[in-house]
Amino acid sequence: MKLIKGFTAEPEGKENYQLNVINFMKHAVRNYARQEIVSRKLDGSLFRYTYKESYERMQRLANALESIGVKVADRVGVLAWNTHQHYEIYYGLPGMGAVMVTLNLRLASQDLTYIVNHSGTKYLIVDEDLIQIAENIAASCDNIKGYIIITDKDLNDIETNLAPLYSYEDLLKKALPEYKWLNLDENSAYAACYTTGTTGKPKGVYYSHRNLYLQSMMFAAYFSFTVNDVVLQLVPMFHVLGWSMPHAATYIGAKLIFSGKWNLNDVEDLTKIMVQEKVSLTGAVPAVFMAMLEVIRNLEEKPDFSHARLICGGSEPPITLMRGFWDETGGEIIHSYGSTEAMSNSTLNSFKPWLKKELSEEELWQLKKKQGIIVSGLDVKVVDEEGNEVPCDGKTSGEVLFRGPWITNSYYKSPQTSSSFTEDGFFRSGDVGCLDSEGYLKITDRIKDVIKSGGEWISSIDMENSLVSHPGVLEAAVIGIPHPKWDERPLALVVLREGFRSINKEEIFGHLTKTFAKWQLPEEILFVESIPRTSVGKLDKKTMRIQYQDLYTKS
Amino acid sequence: MKLIKGFTAEPEGKENYQLNVINFMKHAVRNYARQEIVSRKLDGSLFRYTYKESYERMQRLANALESIGVKVADRVGVLAWNTHQHYEIYYGLPGMGAVMVTLNLRLASQDLTYIVNHSGTKYLIVDEDLIQIAENIAASCDNIKGYIIITDKDLNDIETNLAPLYSYEDLLKKALPEYKWLNLDENSAYAACYTTGTTGKPKGVYYSHRNLYLQSMMFAAYFSFTVNDVVLQLVPMFHVLGWSMPHAATYIGAKLIFSGKWNLNDVEDLTKIMVQEKVSLTGAVPAVFMAMLEVIRNLEEKPDFSHARLICGGSEPPITLMRGFWDETGGEIIHSYGSTEAMSNSTLNSFKPWLKKELSEEELWQLKKKQGIIVSGLDVKVVDEEGNEVPCDGKTSGEVLFRGPWITNSYYKSPQTSSSFTEDGFFRSGDVGCLDSEGYLKITDRIKDVIKSGGEWISSIDMENSLVSHPGVLEAAVIGIPHPKWDERPLALVVLREGFRSINKEEIFGHLTKTFAKWQLPEEILFVESIPRTSVGKLDKKTMRIQYQDLYTKS
Repeated sequence: MKLIKGFTAEPEGKENYQLNVINFMKHAVRNYARQEIVSRKLDGSLFRYTYKESYERMQRLANALESIGVKVADRVGVLAWNTHQHYEIYYGLPGMGAVMVTLNLRLASQDLTYIVNHSGTKYLIVDEDLIQIAENIAASCDNIKGYIIITDKDLNDIETNLAPLYSYEDLLKKALPEYKWLNLDENSAYAACYTTGTTGKPKGVYYSHRNLYLQSMMFAAYFSFTVNDVVLQLVPMFHVLGWSMPHAATYIGAKLIFSGKWNLNDVEDLTKIMVQEKVSLTGAVPAVFMAMLEVIRNLEEKPDFSHARLICGGSEPPITLMRGFWDETGGEIIHSYGSTEAMSNSTLNSFKPWLKKELSEEELWQLKKKQGIIVSGLDVKVVDEEGNEVPCDGKTSGEVLFRGPWITNSYYKSPQTSSSFTEDGFFRSGDVGCLDSEGYLKITDRIKDVIKSGGEWISSIDMENSLVSHPGVLEAAVIGIPHPKWDERPLALVVLREGFRSINKEEIFGHLTKTFAKWQLPEEILFVESIPRTSVGKLDKKTMRIQYQDLYTKS
Repeated sequence: MKLIKGFTAEPEGKENYQLNVINFMKHAVRNYARQEIVSRKLDGSLFRYTYKESYERMQRLANALESIGVKVADRVGVLAWNTHQHYEIYYGLPGMGAVMVTLNLRLASQDLTYIVNHSGTKYLIVDEDLIQIAENIAASCDNIKGYIIITDKDLNDIETNLAPLYSYEDLLKKALPEYKWLNLDENSAYAACYTTGTTGKPKGVYYSHRNLYLQSMMFAAYFSFTVNDVVLQLVPMFHVLGWSMPHAATYIGAKLIFSGKWNLNDVEDLTKIMVQEKVSLTGAVPAVFMAMLEVIRNLEEKPDFSHARLICGGSEPPITLMRGFWDETGGEIIHSYGSTEAMSNSTLNSFKPWLKKELSEEELWQLKKKQGIIVSGLDVKVVDEEGNEVPCDGKTSGEVLFRGPWITNSYYKSPQTSSSFTEDGFFRSGDVGCLDSEGYLKITDRIKDVIKSGGEWISSIDMENSLVSHPGVLEAAVIGIPHPKWDERPLALVVLREGFRSINKEEIFGHLTKTFAKWQLPEEILFVESIPRTSVGKLDKKTMRIQYQDLYTKS
């Protein structure tokens, strides 16, 4: 894209004030020093301190990192839960010019090793109870010069062969409480987040301070953060920077609650915290909100979430989930869609004032299942296989492409950059979807998972959603299998719930017929014991396609 | 300030997506095409159209400007009221790469001539009933190549010697409805706004697209704009870009209402519009809100402004005004302070959650008179005469300096740049103030108006506010006059209201004694018939100081 120079607003040599993420914290402390930050400890109790106290520890951290030899531009890996220390690292580490490499603790050791080596990570900060993960990769990561353990214990009481070893708390105690933040070029990397697909090596997305600054400002404005908000951080902070919620909250000075280490069994405790602390903003995947709704249904006194925005991402939230929250608590589930390359949220689906008047209740709920409108700042286009834009008619689908101030332009040192980014700066999301005349995006598939049957496309995601809505179906996957006449035809793999094992194919076909045309129906339905998944829990369709590749061709 | 380069997030040659203001409109139309825009016509009736229709006219405007020869980087002056056409110009003109030079139609001809010539303005866009102003300067502005008149009339029916003459509406009709916006370098000037002080020539502040983009995002987030808001544009759009409200509204997709041509006599009509259209956000100077409160007091049915944010700038709003709105309508007046160099609002004063609990009602109102907290994104410091930062104790005052992503770094081709901007990028506001421990800024004076008496500073603004709070005082000014013993001593000039002409000095001294220490009281109070003001209505203290310079020294 040719860049046009207009009439320059400032004379040469007058530099722009740089967009540095540390300024969010500096300014939050100036205005809201006494605002509270809460952190859920391993034993479930709540630790409380203030922005001011947190900021002092961030400054100590920056000094501490310098004291052990971390330099500007060094990459430092982080393996940690959703704690206040993780939050301190979000500012203290990139504030002193280093790059935070967020490590997804659910990845396989070989992927983590690849990420640490590919990024040139020199130090690792590790939560005490994640030491095992660091130990598993240590031998294959020669670059690492030191391990900083987040623990309240004395280092001598920790059994590990990691070396050299530092204590996060000891380092902070010894460091000075004031740090003069650098005037860092805004294009300097703030963090790196590696994305793992079902194919190939993890790909490194490096976010600049500028990227993150702009995305967080958008997030604060579009999700209406205010200083009166209480924000609960449920999304793992190693996952696309925790969907940017902690930064947007800091930007606006809201109260923050970190959820600590948790899994679905802790949702009851987290729900209690939501009620007790009057949480008004949180984000999670549908499975977490599902579990929360179950907890709420069992509560005698229903919580009032009528002022809460419950941001739901990762995959499409079922209508039953959204209605359930609305009916039980008055809380609005806002679906949002994004990606690592787009630094989380690219859309949000909130009611528009005029559609609220024009649509029936049922139509509104159907609409709320869509991924939503694209946030201001981002260009979007949906293109066919020749790269031509398709009409915004709510029907014609194609690959969805994004570009904008915080969308990455490349994968770090990866040959996949050229195929994933266009010359005019668009990121090929790999998602298939369509836009309607009101600007709502609906994602129907991954481009590699879409089923091309007789020149028409069939959405595997829609069919999977329909299958799991049957009471007897526990899990389902739909893939396209080569077919001699129709190019591809769908195959459905279904895992039945216990107690429903007697269901037959005809029952399932009958269920699908309610929402799909005859030609869209699977050629075959197979009942299986389990469905292959990747290390991060996604359906592993690549493996399934190989396994069943001959099903419709051999006879 | 030395710029440190960190680890570069993207490889060389991968350009950042540019922050262009036209994207606000592009994205607003994608998401909220049907959102309404209302414009108050000269006859008081309301014209209505949508973002989509407005956007088509912006594109026609960009094509039209090109058709008459306007090129990238050309400066185009605008003399217009708060109309939908002015809004179209806000996007169509800078969108095609030209620079919008906003002209304050209340300036004297010699200042306007200076601005037009100094900026190198080539075209003028003029509202039909402001043609006279353009005619007054035309002969002294040789650079101007054409005049575009905003009118519904046929050009032949307009009597003027301006030439060549174009009709805004005719140009739009003839132009194509689609325009391919440029990928403009974000440091290109979007607009120029000249600031007029009481001394010297007007100084040109040139705002880049980047400046405006960032300021508008902040504005939308900090004043909690949402798509459900109805925003009434009262602030003149030629005045620091209308305090950025139209841009923040567009960024978030809110409904916009333009107030047209109006003065204080129209406030009753505008108040009716506020009620009828359910306005939830507006901004104005205290005098306008005062007039509005009077109107509301006379209404039988009081409007409910409990969801409205009434942003009040220009000068400190009296407590009676803020309480009046609160009591009569439930509406919150939010004081905000800014400057042309800071692109309007640098602070806002809204209740903080914990202060609401801790302070008494009276203390809260007193607090709300302060200028407020500095918005996130801006660095602030208050410095003494040696340039050292003073403590944030709510008492120690000094000059207030700002820097940040949208604060200008220079005046265009002006020798005053070096004295007004520091080497590390701070703008010397010329305002004296202090910060308290909660981050609230209180402005006490202009630095050149502060009175230095025996080593202590006396605030002329506080004393003027106290004087006009006396029922018999219509206007007042307080200046520092050279004094043989105390360096300077205050002099108060007072204009009495009709019916109060018998008030004597003792009465006024007695009134001041309630809030000022004895040493702070004026050495002398003079009753005068009028107080000198500048062309834009500010107190002309320079003239007063010259007039009374010998008062305390000759004996």
